[in-house]
Amino acid sequence: MILEALRAALGTDAVFDAAQVAERATSYWSQAPMQGAALVRPRSTDDVAAALRICHAAGQAVVTHGGLTGCVEGAIADPQSVIISLERMNVIEEIDPIGRTATVGAGVTMQNLQEAAREQGLLYAVDLGARGSCTIGGNVSTNAGGINVIRYGMMRAHVLGLEAVLADGTVISSMNRMLKNNAGYDLKQLFIGSEGTLGIVTRVVVRLDEAMSSRNSAMVALTSFEQVTQLLKRLQRELGGQLSAYEVMWGDYFRDVTEPGFHRAPLDRGHPYYVMLEAEGADADADAARFMAVMEGALADELVADAVIPQSETERRTLWEIRENFMALYRRQPIFLYDVSLPIREMPAYVAEVQARLKRRWPNSRCDVIGHIGDGNLHFFVHPGAEGEHLHEQSDEDVYAPLQPIGGSISAEHGIGTEKRRHLPISRSAAEIALMHTLKQTLDPKGILNPGKVL
Amino acid sequence: MILEALRAALGTDAVFDAAQVAERATSYWSQAPMQGAALVRPRSTDDVAAALRICHAAGQAVVTHGGLTGCVEGAIADPQSVIISLERMNVIEEIDPIGRTATVGAGVTMQNLQEAAREQGLLYAVDLGARGSCTIGGNVSTNAGGINVIRYGMMRAHVLGLEAVLADGTVISSMNRMLKNNAGYDLKQLFIGSEGTLGIVTRVVVRLDEAMSSRNSAMVALTSFEQVTQLLKRLQRELGGQLSAYEVMWGDYFRDVTEPGFHRAPLDRGHPYYVMLEAEGADADADAARFMAVMEGALADELVADAVIPQSETERRTLWEIRENFMALYRRQPIFLYDVSLPIREMPAYVAEVQARLKRRWPNSRCDVIGHIGDGNLHFFVHPGAEGEHLHEQSDEDVYAPLQPIGGSISAEHGIGTEKRRHLPISRSAAEIALMHTLKQTLDPKGILNPGKVL
Repeated sequence: MILEALRAALGTDAVFDAAQVAERATSYWSQAPMQGAALVRPRSTDDVAAALRICHAAGQAVVTHGGLTGCVEGAIADPQSVIISLERMNVIEEIDPIGRTATVGAGVTMQNLQEAAREQGLLYAVDLGARGSCTIGGNVSTNAGGINVIRYGMMRAHVLGLEAVLADGTVISSMNRMLKNNAGYDLKQLFIGSEGTLGIVTRVVVRLDEAMSSRNSAMVALTSFEQVTQLLKRLQRELGGQLSAYEVMWGDYFRDVTEPGFHRAPLDRGHPYYVMLEAEGADADADAARFMAVMEGALADELVADAVIPQSETERRTLWEIRENFMALYRRQPIFLYDVSLPIREMPAYVAEVQARLKRRWPNSRCDVIGHIGDGNLHFFVHPGAEGEHLHEQSDEDVYAPLQPIGGSISAEHGIGTEKRRHLPISRSAAEIALMHTLKQTLDPKGILNPGKVL
Repeated sequence: MILEALRAALGTDAVFDAAQVAERATSYWSQAPMQGAALVRPRSTDDVAAALRICHAAGQAVVTHGGLTGCVEGAIADPQSVIISLERMNVIEEIDPIGRTATVGAGVTMQNLQEAAREQGLLYAVDLGARGSCTIGGNVSTNAGGINVIRYGMMRAHVLGLEAVLADGTVISSMNRMLKNNAGYDLKQLFIGSEGTLGIVTRVVVRLDEAMSSRNSAMVALTSFEQVTQLLKRLQRELGGQLSAYEVMWGDYFRDVTEPGFHRAPLDRGHPYYVMLEAEGADADADAARFMAVMEGALADELVADAVIPQSETERRTLWEIRENFMALYRRQPIFLYDVSLPIREMPAYVAEVQARLKRRWPNSRCDVIGHIGDGNLHFFVHPGAEGEHLHEQSDEDVYAPLQPIGGSISAEHGIGTEKRRHLPISRSAAEIALMHTLKQTLDPKGILNPGKVL
């Protein structure tokens, strides 16, 4: 049987049985025992290829595991699945300070790569909350976003090359290390953001940047969404490309997380919008002077109603906590988290419509909103304020339906996974989905790779 | 016959016959009469779809024309081909200053888009010499590079959404306008850089940036390649991300283009390397002060042997002319132009090897080198200094063969087209090329789209 074949090919220590699988937690988000017929721990691309050849011959479903921090149940396995975990492919093979590239195994964690780059005076610019657990391979498969997209782009912009194994065990090695390479089709794009359904990414070459040495931050309050967009434009223009974060909080969110017992409010709690913003550069004195001049200009022009500038790293962290630690919202249960994108100018009307729909459905519902608005990305925290069945489905309908007429996306950065699969037609046409199926059928005709995800 | 069917579907004025085709020049580079059985000028995506349905049914080969400025004979048609020219799909449909996007027809020229963006205080950051003729659709199909890649990335980084027509006339509309969208497979990647072999791009959404208002430039001389890479790193670090161009000229190139009768040499002609560099920001006074401080530091540390800073726009243009106008090299004929990429640290040894191979083959040969080295991209001008047959093929061998062991690419930014097709195996493995054929077969089973190009 398959377990024996996998053990024969990869070694006994590389293959766990169902009982050993159940000793693991399902994911970062669920402590329930993991399900799976077996879990394979390859040490190399060749190991992955050997495992896939065996599974392919048997028509065996395979689920790939990285750090298991994804938000859309994209790596969930059923009891019949063989899991391939890349946890032992966790070597940083090389950092090239001249070419500014890192070559890594897919199982390297984001934080390990960030730290290795920093030791060389370099920056690996993709960053998000799960940095300690999520892996580079997982970030590739989901085209991870995070907090630096506005300046540095998503994961796709950082992948220069990769190695992937197709469903039948064929190794596609495209380990390009250059910013420019137009020699034929850019095959790596197939594996970025396809959530493990078209191949298993085993090694990656990523772009690094020079580390910045200065940082200036502020939290500001604003009175209209127009001011929120005008301030963003002004900062991107006047800071000469140094803006690295522009995180918007709608007033309700700010008030909820600064209620007594949670964060202390650094600004009056009555404003309609708040923004946490940050710029990074290379000249501490000059950058600070410019940052203050730009902020003073925004205050003088009444673009900003109020502002607080942290005077220490501790104060800065305290401000960021307001944006990043929203545990206050989780007092109310259930709560549903959303990750959508839409054109910036559509945001105020869209948010108002979603909130109105939810209020019509559930008069006591709450809908808190934050966003990486420079990226077109909003996150919603919906508390229906009601009990009963199908709350989540009804909430989905209220959040997703208004996206269709404005060309919005049901997934900005989290992916589709299992959770959003049935909503895909809201954001993609029948012709697009048919072409996705064609690609899937072509690369994985037996449908063994991460079945039930995305499509 | 096909001509009649196309006229019936698109209108008489939309279809030229072979005689009318022959009134056009083959390309930007060749004044020979264009070949083709017909040339179709659609006004809309629906027109393109109608034309492709007719051609698909008949198994008729189709070549798509943009601005015809490509360097690798990627748009060349034979007398049996039907040409689809997107010249009438040249409308800038929308510029969104808040979302910083432009929605354009594929036939819009780069320069028209650059100017339309500038009028709104925005920057369309892709730029290259053929800006007045090349089209956005052509730039997408070839994943254009150019002079701003070091800061802003290639065309692929600027395409947010697109509409393409498949070989059978199916319209794939993926007109996303957001920086983040992970709703299923990113289908647009199939059409970027595949040179019209997988579909015809008809409309595009591109990302814009805020326009910068300050610019500082210098031309410097350096004594070693290590200094060239060290200076690049220092500028990227100390200018806080403002470096927008770093164009290296090997000494032989500099001397050749500054011979009597051509450019005046602004620096002593005896140095091994020269770099034209530029930084763009948003604060004229502060940026100039910092730029001068960084340059003075590089001189003080003897990283740079000599430097000239232009004092006016005219002086700046004069410096750029040394890099951009290499007509001096074309006195010697024949001359072969190359566009390769490789890891930066491999460059000195690679250049030395190519030059040694050429000297062994042709003792009087010359090989001038310039490069966007931050992108890993070198351009060679090879003059074999000999007469006879197969000069180009032999030169190709000397330039391309040494790329294989170092993971270099035979095409950094120009693409493969017809010209580099037979060399593709130097840069891509058999498994990669087989997967490219699989994609081609899946999307264009009759092989009607731009046959003979890339694969």
